[in-house]
Amino acid sequence: MALRCEVVTVGTELLLGQIVDTNSAWIGEHLATAGIDSHFQTKVGDNQGRIEEALRVALARSDAVICCGGLGPTQDDITRDAIAAVMGVALVRDEAMVENIRRIFGARGRDMAANNARQADRPVGAEFIVQTRGTAPGLICPVGDQVVYAVPGVPSEMEEMVERAVIPDLVARSGEPATIRSRVLRTWGLAESTLAELVGPRFDRLEGVEGAPTIAFLASGLEGIKVRVTVKAATAELADRALDAEEAALREILGELVFGVDDDTMESVVGSLLLGAGLMLGVAESLTGGLVGSRLTAVPGASNWFRGSIVSYASDVKHELLRVPPGPVVSATAATAMADGAARVLGASVGLGITGVAGPTEQDGMPVGTVFCGVSIGGSSTATELHLPGDRERVRWYATASVLDLLRRALLARG
Amino acid sequence: MALRCEVVTVGTELLLGQIVDTNSAWIGEHLATAGIDSHFQTKVGDNQGRIEEALRVALARSDAVICCGGLGPTQDDITRDAIAAVMGVALVRDEAMVENIRRIFGARGRDMAANNARQADRPVGAEFIVQTRGTAPGLICPVGDQVVYAVPGVPSEMEEMVERAVIPDLVARSGEPATIRSRVLRTWGLAESTLAELVGPRFDRLEGVEGAPTIAFLASGLEGIKVRVTVKAATAELADRALDAEEAALREILGELVFGVDDDTMESVVGSLLLGAGLMLGVAESLTGGLVGSRLTAVPGASNWFRGSIVSYASDVKHELLRVPPGPVVSATAATAMADGAARVLGASVGLGITGVAGPTEQDGMPVGTVFCGVSIGGSSTATELHLPGDRERVRWYATASVLDLLRRALLARG
Repeated sequence: MALRCEVVTVGTELLLGQIVDTNSAWIGEHLATAGIDSHFQTKVGDNQGRIEEALRVALARSDAVICCGGLGPTQDDITRDAIAAVMGVALVRDEAMVENIRRIFGARGRDMAANNARQADRPVGAEFIVQTRGTAPGLICPVGDQVVYAVPGVPSEMEEMVERAVIPDLVARSGEPATIRSRVLRTWGLAESTLAELVGPRFDRLEGVEGAPTIAFLASGLEGIKVRVTVKAATAELADRALDAEEAALREILGELVFGVDDDTMESVVGSLLLGAGLMLGVAESLTGGLVGSRLTAVPGASNWFRGSIVSYASDVKHELLRVPPGPVVSATAATAMADGAARVLGASVGLGITGVAGPTEQDGMPVGTVFCGVSIGGSSTATELHLPGDRERVRWYATASVLDLLRRALLARG
Repeated sequence: MALRCEVVTVGTELLLGQIVDTNSAWIGEHLATAGIDSHFQTKVGDNQGRIEEALRVALARSDAVICCGGLGPTQDDITRDAIAAVMGVALVRDEAMVENIRRIFGARGRDMAANNARQADRPVGAEFIVQTRGTAPGLICPVGDQVVYAVPGVPSEMEEMVERAVIPDLVARSGEPATIRSRVLRTWGLAESTLAELVGPRFDRLEGVEGAPTIAFLASGLEGIKVRVTVKAATAELADRALDAEEAALREILGELVFGVDDDTMESVVGSLLLGAGLMLGVAESLTGGLVGSRLTAVPGASNWFRGSIVSYASDVKHELLRVPPGPVVSATAATAMADGAARVLGASVGLGITGVAGPTEQDGMPVGTVFCGVSIGGSSTATELHLPGDRERVRWYATASVLDLLRRALLARG
């Protein structure tokens, strides 16, 4: 049976809805990847009795608990006290850790406030998880043959500690192979059900095979479908080799539907292709209103391959500035003219044009969701007509990703 | 003592982190507004035994439970079964509700699938909360003198039912005044601590006064600070009158820091001011890369007051297309020239220009976060220099909100 690990997130602001608890979702995803079950996840306020109760309820039905938050320096931060009470031990101050925290402040050119010494408190019998990002160390706290982990509530600090210390400790306790790695292939352009049909035979072949990778689909809303491959292996090298092989097998099936891997985004991939080809991009956008430019310029160093964008929202800006010929502005003709116009006006070698109906009402007799995308490379331009679902905001987002994907495919075809 | 109501959200996808549970945060915020305590919020998977356990644990320490999700038509949707088990009663099919669901499908031009009849199942002794948005009704299920509410997991369906039926039922049980209303004043430009100092005296005057409004600050990340006023009163009219009075008192203190109320956004407010003045806006953006245009065009009907935007990312696009004079492009001179150029090139009566350093590295000797905003109205233009905190993404977002706020203030000053 898989090890069971609950998550308890601490903070009155979570219960009041002032902050949405994204930490337990992140931890749940990483526990699942590591083959560890998480059947209950609980939010509790900054109240010692209730934190203790949440921990006791969790330990009554699971093997381990990750307790997230309440490790700050103030009197409100009482996770350490609650865990010590559940362990039935005293809380002691670790002077070496006080010095460590003082050094962290010193390195930032600041003095340690007296309060911060509380972060060096440790229930007797617990081990620290050394802090690398914030000032609070984490804790590994044995409770009989069970365990409670304490990690900070700041997402970046929590994530680093869970990946580095908590998951490996849980995996070691579970008796599973020591290394678990995963890789995400990012896809655009298919619904989850269609993707599942394509990958189905591969899925079936791996099912139940000892040591075979597992495959999961993660719908990521407006960012396409992620295909996550996970392997367990004795060493990192063996795990990576198995991931490489499975990635190759999936790419064979999915081809250009895969736009990137792991942290790649559609805009970072487009930027890399432009940079590699020595091309400069100019954009003309209408219904997206600047979303295409804003996504591209989210990539650091975009100035090496992006010239700019003309947001030609008013029709006569399209006609006058971009020289879109007279006639309907939601059309293939307008989209290619916008792509050519963007390249010309912005002094770019590649032009992208996008025009359509975002809603809420139809325009020139065209229904909401009608979108035309133009791509112009080296003076030759093509247009693609799309019909996108959803409300105004969804149509604009889908249109943005779709036009970037068309550019990506055009750049790949160019070789 | 305040009534205590826990929240149990149901769905294996929540535990796996495939979906972040935003429902419990939303419910928590609305319970707090209604003066109801929520000490624990639990996520549980689609497993009947574990849903029952979560409900029993919650009922052992609270007066009421809102159970969210698992009311769909499939075999996975077992919230109804789990509640019936906890109540110790049978689940019966309500034929009138089957007909109601069939009518809902009929109105959408579709046939009801046989499965959907499951949504008409009701534990003996429970009442339906009639559905107005989806196909699943909610449930009010007495358990002794306690109560379990079941609502769908689709946020829009859940929110409507909680506001219409669950909160009023809880408030009636609590013996508090029947009507609770709140209003949010949206502010931009001050840190929470500074805002708290300004409002502090008002806060102190209301504290502990019987029937006085309560005031809470909600940090909403990159969208400024929200000031929420809540009143309890015997009738909606009395509540609204008290809210009007408190809003007036707060506006007296905060003045132009308040940019809007409730669902207003910075872009919708700017749009209304432009429309009211019969002005058309043209934008020139550099570091924001299209974010200003994309936010403005998120407002339906933006074409009535927005002409377009020139995303002049490359310096020579600024010089050539917008006629920014030779010299550094991160400067007050460049910002006003961009504002003037945007108005001229786009045929607008109002121009906005924004240039600066988003990072990750400095530019022309200017540190990351240096931003210049230009506003041009009726041929007269001014520039404002800002120093914004954070990484590339935060600088770009703060810059976008800041330049829109400068335009808002300029339009207000114009009268």
